[in-house]
Amino acid sequence: MNSIVALAGGVGGAKLAHGLAQVLAPEQLTIIVNTGDDFEHLGLHISPDLDTVMYTLAGLANPETGWGLAGETWNFLEALGRLNGETWFRLGDRDLATHIERSRRLWAGETLTEVTQALCAALNIHVSLLPMTDDVLRTMVQTDEGELEFQEYFVHQQCRPRVGGFRFDGLQAAAPSAAVVAALEKADAIIFCPSNPFVSLDPILSLTDVRERVQQKRAIAVTPIVGGQALKGPAAKMLAELNLDVSPVAVAQHYAGLLRGFVLDSVDSALVPDLEALGLQVLVTDTIMRTESDRARLALEVLDWGLGIGG
Amino acid sequence: MNSIVALAGGVGGAKLAHGLAQVLAPEQLTIIVNTGDDFEHLGLHISPDLDTVMYTLAGLANPETGWGLAGETWNFLEALGRLNGETWFRLGDRDLATHIERSRRLWAGETLTEVTQALCAALNIHVSLLPMTDDVLRTMVQTDEGELEFQEYFVHQQCRPRVGGFRFDGLQAAAPSAAVVAALEKADAIIFCPSNPFVSLDPILSLTDVRERVQQKRAIAVTPIVGGQALKGPAAKMLAELNLDVSPVAVAQHYAGLLRGFVLDSVDSALVPDLEALGLQVLVTDTIMRTESDRARLALEVLDWGLGIGG
Repeated sequence: MNSIVALAGGVGGAKLAHGLAQVLAPEQLTIIVNTGDDFEHLGLHISPDLDTVMYTLAGLANPETGWGLAGETWNFLEALGRLNGETWFRLGDRDLATHIERSRRLWAGETLTEVTQALCAALNIHVSLLPMTDDVLRTMVQTDEGELEFQEYFVHQQCRPRVGGFRFDGLQAAAPSAAVVAALEKADAIIFCPSNPFVSLDPILSLTDVRERVQQKRAIAVTPIVGGQALKGPAAKMLAELNLDVSPVAVAQHYAGLLRGFVLDSVDSALVPDLEALGLQVLVTDTIMRTESDRARLALEVLDWGLGIGG
Repeated sequence: MNSIVALAGGVGGAKLAHGLAQVLAPEQLTIIVNTGDDFEHLGLHISPDLDTVMYTLAGLANPETGWGLAGETWNFLEALGRLNGETWFRLGDRDLATHIERSRRLWAGETLTEVTQALCAALNIHVSLLPMTDDVLRTMVQTDEGELEFQEYFVHQQCRPRVGGFRFDGLQAAAPSAAVVAALEKADAIIFCPSNPFVSLDPILSLTDVRERVQQKRAIAVTPIVGGQALKGPAAKMLAELNLDVSPVAVAQHYAGLLRGFVLDSVDSALVPDLEALGLQVLVTDTIMRTESDRARLALEVLDWGLGIGG
């Protein structure tokens, strides 16, 4: 039985992770999630990417936004505004339970890995969902308005500042968790979900020895860029501001030396030769996941093809 | 212009405090509130009595319960239950904003007095609302099931255990705040609101020198017992379990040496001689506050009469 590791960040990554969870046995799949977006807000520990993946796997995600909970209400935030509290980060009433329970457990001494396991168990998630590290690593966005914490850039400033680079604060002291290392070691394939290369997957890849461990395996990326655009989030804007092509080829080049295969969207099939020129095997298919069955269909296609390429 | 201090705990105290706020200029009134009920829950600092008084003064209290916020929703708590979190203490979605903002400010180094001032300012409360202390004092209830933290006894166990006594944990290290001392010093009258003597007002009175400061002033208690019952809460049950009469006279005896006047409900007018025998002046009136105008009417009566008795 094959062991599959998925590396994931936000909404697009969560969708493919959900597809993989639909088509694999729970013990076959480990999803390693970016925690570089984590931050302290209102004194609570918030893990936006872990929550997006967790809610998506639990079938609780808001189908319109892709993040947050379906049927959410906002009475806490309204009351906080009345108290002149900080309301720029939209915390829903139901979502808040996750942040408070996670924070409470962390303060009680549990690791983020342990907390995530407990939350997943409560939500009947049977695949292994792992934060990339139990240490503190914070993605900093270097912009024309100075270096900004990720959520300050992403939510508060709505990605408006022009990006010049990224820094992972705490990287020297952060290690992948033992569970992450074990999952990478036993993986038969590693799937880079269609997540932002700079702020979702690079934090994972930058952890000690993760890049080397990935190189030893059959790694396949699913394009986060389709038809010159990112389906969600600032990946396209970041590529342009970094003077890179807004193209799957630029993403593949960014992952140079890590990948054996690349999954390209049908609308970009003209780019196959460019990807092959990078030494990559290429699958061309419809990568846009509009429905839950799209997620499972793409996951199956990626697995069937990916497990067949040179290992 | 007279300066008035009110000592208050939960719902009954909040109602009279609101009446006093309606009939006095803001600078005339200081409300000193019990914080012996405060506790840490889900990692947050919760001040139930401060909130009851604050919400009542702001006109936001739930008119049916007397505590919590009107129009409250419970989606946070439902989601917390789904995560197997602790749900016995009912935290509403809007109410939670108070606990999170208060906790955030405390963690940032503000005193509870400063936090309360900021929250009151945001809610357009103009009278001075003071926690009795910025230190940690915790009311412990000694019962036939052992010593229980107050909220464990009051909310979790719904006052079921039989009470044998009380202990104020942290009392030796707790001091009344400077603002509390200053308010007591300049007070022309001190009004004991119709709050539980054991668990609402005793914590305040037990703080260093508070009893002595009250003795130097014209202090008046409004009865928390009417017709052999407490209108709200466990005061009657506690009196009975402590082998005391469930009577305003027992309450007056409990406050022995502190009071000059006692406000008795009309239904208990037969008890006037017993109270006079304790050396107290007595006002007999309708003390039950069903409406907001009842609160103002009682406040005016208490002030008019109280400021006239021997000072």
